[in-house]
Amino acid sequence: MDLSKTKAFGTSRSLINSFNALSEMEIERQAPKADEVLIEILYCGVCHSDLHQIKNDWGNTLWPCVPGHEIVGKVVQAGSAVTKFKEGDTVGVGCLIDSCGHCDSCHEGLEQYCEGPVSSTATYNGYQKPDGSGYNTFGGYSTHITVKESFVLSIPDSLDSKRAAPILCAGITTYSPLRHWNVQPGQSVAVVGIGGLGHMAIKLAKAMGATVTAITRLEEKRADAKALGADAVLVSADDKAMTAAELSFDLILATVPDSFDINPYINLLKRDGKLIIVGVIGPFKEPTNNMQVLFHRRSVAGSLIGGIKETQEVLDFCAEHNIMPDVQMIRMQDINDAFDKMEKEEVRFRYVIDMQSLKNN
Amino acid sequence: MDLSKTKAFGTSRSLINSFNALSEMEIERQAPKADEVLIEILYCGVCHSDLHQIKNDWGNTLWPCVPGHEIVGKVVQAGSAVTKFKEGDTVGVGCLIDSCGHCDSCHEGLEQYCEGPVSSTATYNGYQKPDGSGYNTFGGYSTHITVKESFVLSIPDSLDSKRAAPILCAGITTYSPLRHWNVQPGQSVAVVGIGGLGHMAIKLAKAMGATVTAITRLEEKRADAKALGADAVLVSADDKAMTAAELSFDLILATVPDSFDINPYINLLKRDGKLIIVGVIGPFKEPTNNMQVLFHRRSVAGSLIGGIKETQEVLDFCAEHNIMPDVQMIRMQDINDAFDKMEKEEVRFRYVIDMQSLKNN
Repeated sequence: MDLSKTKAFGTSRSLINSFNALSEMEIERQAPKADEVLIEILYCGVCHSDLHQIKNDWGNTLWPCVPGHEIVGKVVQAGSAVTKFKEGDTVGVGCLIDSCGHCDSCHEGLEQYCEGPVSSTATYNGYQKPDGSGYNTFGGYSTHITVKESFVLSIPDSLDSKRAAPILCAGITTYSPLRHWNVQPGQSVAVVGIGGLGHMAIKLAKAMGATVTAITRLEEKRADAKALGADAVLVSADDKAMTAAELSFDLILATVPDSFDINPYINLLKRDGKLIIVGVIGPFKEPTNNMQVLFHRRSVAGSLIGGIKETQEVLDFCAEHNIMPDVQMIRMQDINDAFDKMEKEEVRFRYVIDMQSLKNN
Repeated sequence: MDLSKTKAFGTSRSLINSFNALSEMEIERQAPKADEVLIEILYCGVCHSDLHQIKNDWGNTLWPCVPGHEIVGKVVQAGSAVTKFKEGDTVGVGCLIDSCGHCDSCHEGLEQYCEGPVSSTATYNGYQKPDGSGYNTFGGYSTHITVKESFVLSIPDSLDSKRAAPILCAGITTYSPLRHWNVQPGQSVAVVGIGGLGHMAIKLAKAMGATVTAITRLEEKRADAKALGADAVLVSADDKAMTAAELSFDLILATVPDSFDINPYINLLKRDGKLIIVGVIGPFKEPTNNMQVLFHRRSVAGSLIGGIKETQEVLDFCAEHNIMPDVQMIRMQDINDAFDKMEKEEVRFRYVIDMQSLKNN
């Protein structure tokens, strides 16, 4: 196999906030070093941040851009020093492929908060070298990837490989805050936004024993939310219902992928309640009204994906509790149409690319 | 003593955000019921919220308005069922004089977060009856006050009575979040705003074993902050110093009494660091940039004064650690001038009214 001509789907340039269609391209992958494995990618989830990144919404996109950080595949070659994996193993790669390894966060298994010189290395759109001089990393919209074994996850046998892919971002991003803020049986949890992340948050919080309310703008999503396991549905456009729900929740996890006004959600928290926002990278729409925060000692916090150890934990948790993302399989060639549908909120609830479509092309 | 003609200082009406001078007036106090004590007020601290309230900055001022919720006095009469206090005892009254007594917050000794029909009753500007139909409460800018014994604090003998007064608001408002968020020896704490609350926060956090940095807009306050015990001073107008201080603090307590932009302070927090805002009742100046929150799992929270049990705790803590507010004594008749100086940030660090000046008038 000629890794210097690995097939991929990406885009080479875009203006900020505008969308350039992805098309097939060749990228170079490296043969695995002693501590690395070469993975043949079978499935790759399509995350809303893939769309943000190719639109350069955050103004930091490196070109060319090959997205994809919900990767499931098979080990086809393991470096000489690799101990955890062997050829044929089903493995996963999430949002990170490296970190400094020396800072407090890395030592604590929180590589996503790495405080090294250039923080952790993202699976795509990340610099490969700590001094920032290295090349741009390419993600899972490709047939193969080479990754250091310490950043590779083991996919439990009982998980359906294609459906497991979204656990590597949507799953861990919602699992990590639910665990960190210690969601307990009997607690009241709300999930804002019922998309890729939100649908996993509902399932995970239910499995942790919480009573779960899905909060959505759209009355039409009520049936979907109930089908996902939500105990109740709150429509945020319904002012009366929102007022009635004040002081109701121990924790609210907001998964909406774009900026919004957080103030109406703060009011829904109990005393000492926490509003955790995982989807907004940038400023909220309105200044926070501290009156509503201070009068009930509430907190507003943020959380970023999860560390490697915790990502393995959520995979195992999903296997144990029989939790699977709801996915719609697409061909790699359908990605531009899929992005379009994601923007229109038509996906239920995660697209996963069958990478066979690219191999056979 | 004719309690129906109790001397007080107050103001009878004001437009929002404008200041009507306070002048002497008569108010009616009640004889103590079985569970109440009548207190002769000796000293009353002047809190920035007194000024907010008479200016109707929060749009909720009841008229006439007699401020004052940092009250130290002597029991002159105890109701028949009173067990904790007797005539002659030196006692304190803080921001609260009643609460529903039945909700979870009340049961947990967190009366400030009372979830009863009209929340807790403020010492001034509070409705006396739970259905909101009762009269307006009058605060400590008066010679006497009648209070339910369960809302009366015991002033430890070793505390200088006049200097103890500000502990009842400035002290508890800063002590409560430092305790709630579990400040530990060796932790790095910053205090934003070096006024009535901030100067107490520095002393309290030092006594809890933290390394304390005072953050102030003004280079001129450096010497004051050091004299109060701060280990370091950070001038927020110094961009270079602010950048150098990124990722430095476990907890930042912001005591600034007016709205400000919290974003520059968020950047100063370590991973998992908390920014606690106790001074702003209303919206911040700018929307929070969640990028800085999420990338380090930071939290932004608010905290409101403290419960009765914790207020006794901070009084005892101050006695034990020999912590006293720095006060400037004034006459009741000088209050308007004192407000003027507070607005110009000339007070160091709390005015306390010697109520003898009103009695002898």
